[in-house]
Amino acid sequence: MSIVPPRSGELLRLSSLFVRTLREDPADAEVASHKLLVRAGYIRRAAPGVYSWLPLGLRVLAKVEQVVREEMAAIGAQEVHFPALLPREPYEATGRWAEYGPNIFRLKDRKDGDYLLAPTHEEMFTLLVKDLYSSYKDLPVALYQIQTKYRDEARPRAGLIRGREFIMKDAYSFDLDDAGLAAAYEKQRGAYQRIFDRLGLEYVIVSATSGAMGGSRSEEFLSPSPIGEDTFVRSAGGYAANVEAVVTPVPDALPYDDAPAAHVEDTPDTPTIDSLVACANADHPRADRAWTGADTLKNVVLAVKQPDGSRELLVVGLPGDREVDVKRLEAALAPAEAEPATEADFAAHPELVKGYIGPGVLGPQGAQVTDEAGETRSAIRYLLDPRVVPGTRWITGADTPGRHVFDLVAGRDFTGDGTIEAAEVRAGDLAPDGSGPLELARGIEIGHIFQLGRKYAEALELKVLDPNGKQAVVTMGSYGIGVTRVLAALAEANHDDRGLAWPAHVAPAHVHVVATGKGAEVFEAAEQIAAGLVAEGVEVVYDDRPKVSPGVKFADAELFGVPLLLVVGRGLADGVVELRPRAGEAVQVPVGEVVATATERVRALLGGS
Amino acid sequence: MSIVPPRSGELLRLSSLFVRTLREDPADAEVASHKLLVRAGYIRRAAPGVYSWLPLGLRVLAKVEQVVREEMAAIGAQEVHFPALLPREPYEATGRWAEYGPNIFRLKDRKDGDYLLAPTHEEMFTLLVKDLYSSYKDLPVALYQIQTKYRDEARPRAGLIRGREFIMKDAYSFDLDDAGLAAAYEKQRGAYQRIFDRLGLEYVIVSATSGAMGGSRSEEFLSPSPIGEDTFVRSAGGYAANVEAVVTPVPDALPYDDAPAAHVEDTPDTPTIDSLVACANADHPRADRAWTGADTLKNVVLAVKQPDGSRELLVVGLPGDREVDVKRLEAALAPAEAEPATEADFAAHPELVKGYIGPGVLGPQGAQVTDEAGETRSAIRYLLDPRVVPGTRWITGADTPGRHVFDLVAGRDFTGDGTIEAAEVRAGDLAPDGSGPLELARGIEIGHIFQLGRKYAEALELKVLDPNGKQAVVTMGSYGIGVTRVLAALAEANHDDRGLAWPAHVAPAHVHVVATGKGAEVFEAAEQIAAGLVAEGVEVVYDDRPKVSPGVKFADAELFGVPLLLVVGRGLADGVVELRPRAGEAVQVPVGEVVATATERVRALLGGS
Repeated sequence: MSIVPPRSGELLRLSSLFVRTLREDPADAEVASHKLLVRAGYIRRAAPGVYSWLPLGLRVLAKVEQVVREEMAAIGAQEVHFPALLPREPYEATGRWAEYGPNIFRLKDRKDGDYLLAPTHEEMFTLLVKDLYSSYKDLPVALYQIQTKYRDEARPRAGLIRGREFIMKDAYSFDLDDAGLAAAYEKQRGAYQRIFDRLGLEYVIVSATSGAMGGSRSEEFLSPSPIGEDTFVRSAGGYAANVEAVVTPVPDALPYDDAPAAHVEDTPDTPTIDSLVACANADHPRADRAWTGADTLKNVVLAVKQPDGSRELLVVGLPGDREVDVKRLEAALAPAEAEPATEADFAAHPELVKGYIGPGVLGPQGAQVTDEAGETRSAIRYLLDPRVVPGTRWITGADTPGRHVFDLVAGRDFTGDGTIEAAEVRAGDLAPDGSGPLELARGIEIGHIFQLGRKYAEALELKVLDPNGKQAVVTMGSYGIGVTRVLAALAEANHDDRGLAWPAHVAPAHVHVVATGKGAEVFEAAEQIAAGLVAEGVEVVYDDRPKVSPGVKFADAELFGVPLLLVVGRGLADGVVELRPRAGEAVQVPVGEVVATATERVRALLGGS
Repeated sequence: MSIVPPRSGELLRLSSLFVRTLREDPADAEVASHKLLVRAGYIRRAAPGVYSWLPLGLRVLAKVEQVVREEMAAIGAQEVHFPALLPREPYEATGRWAEYGPNIFRLKDRKDGDYLLAPTHEEMFTLLVKDLYSSYKDLPVALYQIQTKYRDEARPRAGLIRGREFIMKDAYSFDLDDAGLAAAYEKQRGAYQRIFDRLGLEYVIVSATSGAMGGSRSEEFLSPSPIGEDTFVRSAGGYAANVEAVVTPVPDALPYDDAPAAHVEDTPDTPTIDSLVACANADHPRADRAWTGADTLKNVVLAVKQPDGSRELLVVGLPGDREVDVKRLEAALAPAEAEPATEADFAAHPELVKGYIGPGVLGPQGAQVTDEAGETRSAIRYLLDPRVVPGTRWITGADTPGRHVFDLVAGRDFTGDGTIEAAEVRAGDLAPDGSGPLELARGIEIGHIFQLGRKYAEALELKVLDPNGKQAVVTMGSYGIGVTRVLAALAEANHDDRGLAWPAHVAPAHVHVVATGKGAEVFEAAEQIAAGLVAEGVEVVYDDRPKVSPGVKFADAELFGVPLLLVVGRGLADGVVELRPRAGEAVQVPVGEVVATATERVRALLGGS
């Protein structure tokens, strides 16, 4: 006996359900989830990266949200709800008003006040806890919301996967000390595992960078998918990281006492690594083995743009057989962004001889360097790949067209301003923890958890009295799930070329009843079966459209992706109904048993709950 | 047996619930709902007119939304969800991009595209139905969403009652013909009645103006409240209207064949109606009765601003005993706004002699009028109160300081450009339907339903094939409920000076258990009772705070407003617990029966559901 009556099933009649399926893929859709969600009538585009939700889509979304809510409640996180429209001040206090640059939507109200559409809510949660709480006795506390977020993405893409208006669950933990934060982080991590397990969504937990969020430990939950925007690595020994977070194992320094002195050689017409390696092997061969790209030091000129708009050149030195991975570079430089140097940049720096740049005109900042014309200027900032340890020997540019230096020894002949993780990670690279070679794969970021630490609490002065009566700055964690993106990831992981194929927990309904044929008895039987299922608490889509062909009805059913299809039609004369799982073998079930059989199947699919 | 397990009760422990009550009213709060919702820890202000929701507030909000959802579903309306961030184009097509003027939030994306934060979604619903539907067979359809809306109010006030970010349920109906629209409108009207009945919120349905929405029939649901922003009228005979929608009964025209000719009289120093009436009675008395303000014709100069920024003068002529009601005036002029004429306006129009303006310099537009200096110019637009029918005689300004015209007869001596409903409505005025004198009262607008007609469908070309195979423009209705405002109206209607007093259906919990005293046995008993209630499906707030005084616990309980309070304390020694309704008499209940008794009470409060 309960105060609250059990929810009954539901009947969605296709004759009146607000939906229209499309046989053709929408022109702007690149990925399966986007194509199928539009074609099946779940969503429609309202603007680039901005979507409207139709009844079927909204049902799936509500189910995803419900799983998230239940698991948040299970770890004691409490739900609140913040505005999306927020004043500038809190974001100014933490520096993010500037840091976000063009990536957020900004607006002014009629009194010329500055506002933003919040991309995430660390500031607001911090201020709310500051408003309500004042003692260590109030801690720990974990809060969350499921709320609409906004980011003015430069390239919204892949439908719901990278949108400009999207739904996130963002949770935040508040603790007095590091041990508390670590415990809160583990609780959220566990809840995330249960959420994705319940949703039937495969995931990999990978080490991640904190990026513009600040903080220390951070992990991402990635749903493996070839269309994912994130690349991650895994070793057989259990290491897993977002490629941006991969730390290059640093080789031991080498002795170089008996290394030959550096010597400049003619290498005509060798502006690329390939041409340089060919020339070196032809004109300057070494005895023991051939030169390869890995023997060369490539110096790549980039421009780094800070959120405040300032722009500065940077040269990255890395083995010639590797490219710069801009995402890794930007993760290392966050919140700054990077772009290739322009012709104007080279014109302003005649010491940089394209294709022949060497440490001779670089070197630690503050040093003075001289260009070919004899002019002296300050050295550009120069960061080296971690593999360029003291004692390694390189062929690199001699800062003169057609000439390279050989046997240039790191630590002896040149140094930089430090190291940077900017080189691409390749399959076969070794994991930093010694667990073996790495594999690369792609994934969709469905969750991200951070040990933020005290960055926000310090900036916004969130302090509580500690047990000794002293003011202590609170330490925080931040935990996000992209709810709409999770829905898209579910569609990516659960479809075929005929349509969607939802896990039962998130499907818009449990059973799809199709009445085929023209006789009234077919529709009467189907109606009764649908009603019987609803009485059992089953959610039913019933295709009661009188003049639609069986072919169209089956195509729509496969597009919708409800887990169980019941076909009421020709078999009726023989007293049977076909039970056809969206994935699996069809069976004939006696009419009198079909409600019980289908209900049993649904219960099994839902895990006996 | 059901697939979906019944929802169990819930236990909210005050030792960990994210809430903090305040003993003092917040400085910016004017009305009880705002003061108490902040003090009880339901909401917090994030910016002017923008609020954050804390756990208790969010629970009430979810319950209000659930009632709205259920009643929408019961009339077959289907839930969808649109973005809040929308491109300019659809609103441009209907003219509302301009019409909204400064009342909406506008922004640009990184590509300089124009966007708005939607204040309402007629355009998007219209376009979605156009996208999906093409035949009369698809109609009727009714859709709705519960969604965050934005308006850049000039004066956000009264907490949730007039906010800048707020939640609305907006529904839209689509029909082929007027009869279909009328039926859809009646269904929504019925659903609204059931929603407010279930919420326990008193309401009055009043005729309303359509304002900037366009359309024909429109009614508002007002929750009577002295702090309401809307004034409405009621007659004993059943007429009810928003004061803006009251139609003045037009008296019959009077014969004026034997009326004396108009004559100008000296009325020195009579720039106001009072001074004019005094002067007329002293110096120009009439035989049968004294002059009153109702015998004078007051000409009020206003400036009308169109959404496109253009501005034009307007003179309103009305009986001198009535003021212009700017809200009624603006309702009549929508979407234009009005303001008093400025000194600069008068300076530009020397024919307007302040305090002595008469129809002599006004008259129908296009006419030429001559000012005192003999200069000729086009007459300003002149609209008359509906009471100024042909044959009525007036004292009014003679366009010369210190002089007025007597026996100026409407229809004989002057006419205007038509009539306007701009005069204030007063208690005792007669209802237009003959149902007797009007009473005035104030109310909070909690719902508004419109028969929009074809305005949006025409502007956005929403057409379907009709049964004759011809393209027919669809006719629409629009139906809104201010969900967050309903919550505030509930708080206004259900509180006392000690705190909130929620109806059981929307209360954040059903029972509030307070453990008072220091003995472990009190907390053990309270814990068991709370657990027992939860097992019965009851939602329980349990004040388990160990070191908080009974006085503070009771004050918090009254502030929260949960319908039933159970006090576990001193009585325990005698085997009883006190059951104290938020409104009603306390009774002592044996410990062993308290779970059953309280559950029974809750069930009764929820109406046996």
